Formats: sequence, structure tokens, C-alpha cells
Amino acid sequence: MYKKEISKAVINRLPRYYRYLGDLLEKDVVRISSKELSEKMSVTASQIRQDLNNFGGFGQQGYGYNVEYLHSEIGKILGLDKRYNVIIIGAGNLGQALANYADFERRGFFIKSIFDINPNLIGTQIRNATVRSNDELEDYIKINKVDIAAITVPKEKAPTIAAELVKWGVKGIWNFAPTDLNLPKDVTIENVHLAESLMKLSYRLSGKDEI
Amino acid sequence: MYKKEISKAVINRLPRYYRYLGDLLEKDVVRISSKELSEKMSVTASQIRQDLNNFGGFGQQGYGYNVEYLHSEIGKILGLDKRYNVIIIGAGNLGQALANYADFERRGFFIKSIFDINPNLIGTQIRNATVRSNDELEDYIKINKVDIAAITVPKEKAPTIAAELVKWGVKGIWNFAPTDLNLPKDVTIENVHLAESLMKLSYRLSGKDEI
Repeated sequence: MYKKEISKAVINRLPRYYRYLGDLLEKDVVRISSKELSEKMSVTASQIRQDLNNFGGFGQQGYGYNVEYLHSEIGKILGLDKRYNVIIIGAGNLGQALANYADFERRGFFIKSIFDINPNLIGTQIRNATVRSNDELEDYIKINKVDIAAITVPKEKAPTIAAELVKWGVKGIWNFAPTDLNLPKDVTIENVHLAESLMKLSYRLSGKDEI
Repeated sequence: MYKKEISKAVINRLPRYYRYLGDLLEKDVVRISSKELSEKMSVTASQIRQDLNNFGGFGQQGYGYNVEYLHSEIGKILGLDKRYNVIIIGAGNLGQALANYADFERRGFFIKSIFDINPNLIGTQIRNATVRSNDELEDYIKINKVDIAAITVPKEKAPTIAAELVKWGVKGIWNFAPTDLNLPKDVTIENVHLAESLMKLSYRLSGKDEI
């Protein structure tokens, strides 16, 4: 759909635009100038214009941006006009936190089931999702449409689980295990490495980053 | 200590180097060539050499890198030779997940206390940390050394809590609330925006990213 090469930096900013516009929508703001948006977001107005021009603009000279329209268009670019079935592997605190996060649903990500090996958890319900045994994982994936699997198991178990998920047909992996997964090219992996985030914080706290 | 301007991209890669070297250490690997390291990490050997040259090299021609030494030096650059006292605001699933993550401690991040408003949680113990009432937060920060506060409260409450934390003396904020915090320049903020991470995944899954 968008043949032009979009830089990673732009793509990294889009979810933030989307979040800001969503906040404005909630406050019933109808339109906003790139100047106002830029002040809210602490990026330059020209950066915003440039970023959005990658996708054909959306702004009107002298009017600014229609918040609802821009929100919906950026949502489409991000693929949020689709519905994603999500499963979580690992019903520990992190898996439960993800399952309880209602915001995901609003954006089209539906947590359908959670898998764990702990017999005390199997059969329990976390929000809309039932905890099932890992033994049922293969059948579940083969019978149900699973777009994304979030992996919240210990790092030692993550590579095997991920390889199985992919073998059974999952194409999107949201990985929280502190390890990099080597998976086929057609699988999309998004990593959330919490310890690395904390290290970036300590790096900057220890005053060596003057950028 | 390092006057040279280090790019954000390099800094973002350092925690990953640190993690890989830590994995090698656990496997008792003594030394590694930049070629081997590069294959493991899927970055080019010249990238690794360039990155590490920012900090004075560490490698020896024909020998490669001493894993333990490089691990420890990168640790120092990241500020991991220090000890950080961490508190968590919000004892929900996410706060509990962070409190239970033993890996943080190994790297010098000690979760000392968790604060919440839920009377059922106050007084309970999560690993090494006691859950305290938010009412005690001000006194706690003024009496104890708190280096980092992790914020895992709903987004509506995050800006107020963050402003208070900073007023009482906290300089490092690890923010999990899906909102940007406007705090004084001398405060270091590291954001973990889970919904945005999920949107980047859906963007790439919907096949518009051909980079």
C-alpha cells in the first residue's frame, strides 16, 4: 500500500501521534494545528508535517488537522483497523498484567487465551481469557486464528516455545523474555526487554549521557 | 567520564552487548572474536568494533575480547557498577511482575518498597519489598535513598504521582503509564509504552513495512 520507504524513526513516532490524538479525541477536540500538536508532543511542527507527508499529508493549510480523521488514518497505517487475536504464553504476573490491560482491546488486540504449565492456574479466568495448559497449545493454534503470541516465560524456555508457536503457524511474536529469538524471516518479532530499558535508565542516571 | 558524544544508537545497543556477554559468561566462555560475537548478535563485526571504539576499544588484535573484562567494562559504562534503590508505585500485576524479577537485583537494582492505595495489598510482601500505603510515600522518600521510581499506575494518576516523586527528590523515573511525563530537565525518564510496542508489531504484521 505504501511503496515509499518509511524510516524506522517515523514508524517509531506514529504510535505516539496516535496516542496523543486519541487523548485529544477523548477531550472532544475537533481540530488541531501542527503547532499546537508539536507543543503538546515536544517535537517540531515541521517534523510532524514531514512525518505525515510520508503518508500523503492529512493537513489543510490554515485549518490544521482534523483530529478524528488523522487519528483514524494513522490507526489504519498502524494496522489498527484490523482485529488481532492474541494469546499469551506464561500466566505469571507479567502475563496477567497484559491480559488485564483493557486498552489493548480498544485498539483491536483481543487476548483470547493464556497458556501455562502451572496446574493451579489452568482453568482460571483472567478477564476475557481462560488459562489453558501448554499441552493444548498446538491444537489451539491449529483450530483458532492466532495472530500474535506474547511470550512471558523465563528466557530458558522462550526459544523452544517460540519455535513451536511458529511451526504451528503464528506469524507475530511479542517477546518479553530477555533473549533474542532466531525465527524465520516471515515472522514478525517485537521485543520488550525490560532489563535493557532499566540499563538505559541507569546509563543516563550515572551522568555519562550528555546528549 | 566519556566526553565524546556517544550516539543514542550506540547506547541502545550496549545493554544488548551486556546481555550477550552475560550469557557467554554463564557458559564459562573466556574469550570471543568480534566475528563470533557478531554472528551471535546478528550485527556486523565492524559495527561491534566501531561501537566499542567509542569507549576505547577493549579488544586485542588476534585475541578478540576477554568476555569477563568486556562484560564488566560495559557494565561500568552502563552504570551497573553502582547500586540503585528502586521503588514501585502501583502494586498491580505489572508492579508485582517487576518486584518479582530477580534479574534486576543481579544488576544492582534493588526493589526496596512498593506503594499502593489498595488496603488489601498494604502490608503484604512481594519478594523483598513490603507494600506500603501511598500516604507514606513522601516520608519514605525523604528518609530513604530512592534512585529510581517505577510508575505502574493508571495514566490518569501518573502525572501527579510523578510530579510528587520529583518534588520529594527522585531523579530517575521508569514510566510504564501510557502517557508522557513533563518533568524537570534534571530528571531522567525512561518510558516503557507497551501499547506502542504492540502497535509497532501490528504495523509490521500488516505488511506495510518493507524495510
